[in-house]
Amino acid sequence: MKTRDRIIQASLQLFNEHGERSTTTNHIAAHLGMSPGNLYYHFRNKEDIILSIFQQYEQHLESAFQPYHDEALNIELLIKYFDAVFYALWQFRFVYTNLADILSRDEQLKARYLKVQTRLQDHVCKLLTQLCNDGFLKIESAHIPALADTVKMIVSFWISYQLTQTTMKSITKSAIYDGVLRLLMLFRAYATETSFETINRIEQHYLSLSQSN
Amino acid sequence: MKTRDRIIQASLQLFNEHGERSTTTNHIAAHLGMSPGNLYYHFRNKEDIILSIFQQYEQHLESAFQPYHDEALNIELLIKYFDAVFYALWQFRFVYTNLADILSRDEQLKARYLKVQTRLQDHVCKLLTQLCNDGFLKIESAHIPALADTVKMIVSFWISYQLTQTTMKSITKSAIYDGVLRLLMLFRAYATETSFETINRIEQHYLSLSQSN
Repeated sequence: MKTRDRIIQASLQLFNEHGERSTTTNHIAAHLGMSPGNLYYHFRNKEDIILSIFQQYEQHLESAFQPYHDEALNIELLIKYFDAVFYALWQFRFVYTNLADILSRDEQLKARYLKVQTRLQDHVCKLLTQLCNDGFLKIESAHIPALADTVKMIVSFWISYQLTQTTMKSITKSAIYDGVLRLLMLFRAYATETSFETINRIEQHYLSLSQSN
Repeated sequence: MKTRDRIIQASLQLFNEHGERSTTTNHIAAHLGMSPGNLYYHFRNKEDIILSIFQQYEQHLESAFQPYHDEALNIELLIKYFDAVFYALWQFRFVYTNLADILSRDEQLKARYLKVQTRLQDHVCKLLTQLCNDGFLKIESAHIPALADTVKMIVSFWISYQLTQTTMKSITKSAIYDGVLRLLMLFRAYATETSFETINRIEQHYLSLSQSN
């Protein structure tokens, strides 16, 4: 792996495990057994590293929630989307823990974040419309944008909410699977007669993951 | 008004308008035309003032979301609850803007917050159960705790979400009415055949408030 990528990977790990605020570039260099000078050869500062992690985060959001094409709607396809929600929350959990803080420190990052969120909103709307057309959900089309936004909101603040509602200091995989289950419950409210059974099966899948993590 | 109460009121106003982080006890004293020494006669420090505001916040949450007794369920009763959501969000908006930050700074406050949230969760569960018993909503009883928690979550992070999703620096009344409308949309997903009409009327009420604010 290239040094640059090793730095990004180690930073993401340390930010997730110890919090972004309490992790310095010195910690990152020490963790990799490299001199701070070597780290600064690749990145100007911590914000610069965060920007690179953010690019990975953007790429994930951009690719994972695309509407489906030339595919039949089935349980595997649905689980792929819910798994992508889990991946975003777990892999980039430091972002969700300090979202407001990180965005308020960097106007350029905030502008990029807003752009990604607008595209994501568009993708989620298209996905919900497909799920309605395929008979999986029943939502008045006028309500789709607000539902897509509610989904985005629940995902974006699930971790923050868990951390304010419990004494736990950092999020667990299990608590994130619970967030996926909560999203499923929201979809259940818009289920059709034919989709209940599929929703139950997906629920069982994440329930067992939540309990074993 | 007692000096102590004037200090609390002015602090709440300044925290809401300029943010809690950028408001110091000196700002508060200056705003009231009082010496810092006089302010310190009433409060040890800013955290002490926050604690007093928090008591008002607790009292509101405790009283406003009690299940109803000896009252017929009607539109006025429902609007009273949604107005109480608006009041909490607007009157204590600085709390919702920096919730994680405020709680992380004070373990005693966090412990009190958790206690209030547990009681609130209990009240919202009872309210949802009443609304089901009165034929207004249709929710499987096993899902009521998770729905109550989702309602709490949407309310708790509505302001934070709005601030991350737009370029606005502080929340508006209109954006908070939009949050009330979003909650209503969630309830609509659990509406019964007889409650749609009432939900539409409540929606019109908050839609006009959102547009005129």
